[in-house]
Amino acid sequence: MTIGIVGCGLVGGSVGLACRSNGHRVLGFEPNSKNARLAFERGCIDQQTSVAEVSQADITFICVPPGFVADVAEEVLEAKPAESVATDCTSTKGAIVSWLETKKDRMFVPGHPMAGHEKSGPQFASAWMFRGAKWIITPCSFTKLAAIQQVEKLVKEMGAIPVRLRAERHDRDVALLSHLPHALAAVLVRLASDLDSTEASAGSWKDLTRVGGVDPKLWSQILTSNREEVSKILGQFGDSLADLRGLLDEDDSEGVLKFFEEAKRAKEKQN
Amino acid sequence: MTIGIVGCGLVGGSVGLACRSNGHRVLGFEPNSKNARLAFERGCIDQQTSVAEVSQADITFICVPPGFVADVAEEVLEAKPAESVATDCTSTKGAIVSWLETKKDRMFVPGHPMAGHEKSGPQFASAWMFRGAKWIITPCSFTKLAAIQQVEKLVKEMGAIPVRLRAERHDRDVALLSHLPHALAAVLVRLASDLDSTEASAGSWKDLTRVGGVDPKLWSQILTSNREEVSKILGQFGDSLADLRGLLDEDDSEGVLKFFEEAKRAKEKQN
Repeated sequence: MTIGIVGCGLVGGSVGLACRSNGHRVLGFEPNSKNARLAFERGCIDQQTSVAEVSQADITFICVPPGFVADVAEEVLEAKPAESVATDCTSTKGAIVSWLETKKDRMFVPGHPMAGHEKSGPQFASAWMFRGAKWIITPCSFTKLAAIQQVEKLVKEMGAIPVRLRAERHDRDVALLSHLPHALAAVLVRLASDLDSTEASAGSWKDLTRVGGVDPKLWSQILTSNREEVSKILGQFGDSLADLRGLLDEDDSEGVLKFFEEAKRAKEKQN
Repeated sequence: MTIGIVGCGLVGGSVGLACRSNGHRVLGFEPNSKNARLAFERGCIDQQTSVAEVSQADITFICVPPGFVADVAEEVLEAKPAESVATDCTSTKGAIVSWLETKKDRMFVPGHPMAGHEKSGPQFASAWMFRGAKWIITPCSFTKLAAIQQVEKLVKEMGAIPVRLRAERHDRDVALLSHLPHALAAVLVRLASDLDSTEASAGSWKDLTRVGGVDPKLWSQILTSNREEVSKILGQFGDSLADLRGLLDEDDSEGVLKFFEEAKRAKEKQN
């Protein structure tokens, strides 16, 4: 099968490595020439070419930041043969699904692999990045089942687990499960910028701040692309944090204990 | 050398395993009989005995939750020979140092190993838990240098890196670097308790919530033992989070970008 990739960064590069290791031919387009060369040198793609050529593939993966996805998707739909499938990997699904509703294209399958890395670029891409990860698919009512199944088959080949969700449900869930954690990590590392050193830190700091220095362009686009849901969950988080602070200020040790007991119960349910 | 341990949980058990593997004899006291048996069976201690007996050791480690440390330290100081050293492992140093100021005991060395685990109890103890970790020592002006050096020597044997800090500096730093991350993780898992599933989660959620279900009794005591510093930093965190939310609400994509750019710079400095 021939696979097309538009945007050969961390996600596109990893799709390429995984698909090539599964025996597919991979055509890529990457506008940043340094990243294009890196993606080729690392074996993420067989060939670097134009968006129009890439779109001739059996399945084209659009792996560009949220701010560019609608324009790129438009270009791919115009260039691709009617029987070819296109899919995207954008972290927020609302905008692309709204756009798709106006197009009524049956062969475009909106998707979002739940895998990543705190570093960006094809130099961090790997064939196994999607192994064991959920790969959310948010099809429209008119999306052709065969197209969905083709994407799901390829996703499974990469080791991921396809999950179908409604776009609104996806965006609400990832606001809490992905966008909020990235926001918290960013707030956390900014708070520590006045410290002489983070010498007294241990595992919790390391874990909570792993994604604190992610690509600002990408992540500011991701958050703004889902800004209503993210704002809502930031508000809820802030309220709950203020509650905990109130308990401490009142020296309500029973209340603080109860707060952590509820957290423990919630965590156990999530394991 | 004979090492005494009062409180054979995760920290005390790990001190015991590390000291025994370095050839020392370890006497332990653990009030919870199930944990006492476990600590013995897992080889954390050579012998379970009374606090009075344990305190006869060359160095006694007090590894109990913050709420009990002053009472236990009092008991150890009364029982121990004048030339023996005592040290504690409590996460907040202000209270124990204030208590020590009234005692003027030159052989008591307040300390705090920056290592742990999201699970509690001797069943999770390990001889290598302190390897590569900072072990903060917050001596008083009157603390005998020889006592500090004895603790530091033992700490190094366990693979940890001793660091001397003033108690106030320690408490301010760990409010940000440890107590805040644990609070955030607890708030996060509580927020997700209404979700049907955390199916759409990936690495950032996993990392940010690792310590979300820690022992409620221990961690509510840790937070309340440092409540002024923790409240201050929770307030600062909440303000910064509200700023980010404001930027999203105003659809200020430049502002959100700048927020993440500052985070990236801060993170780079911390690496």
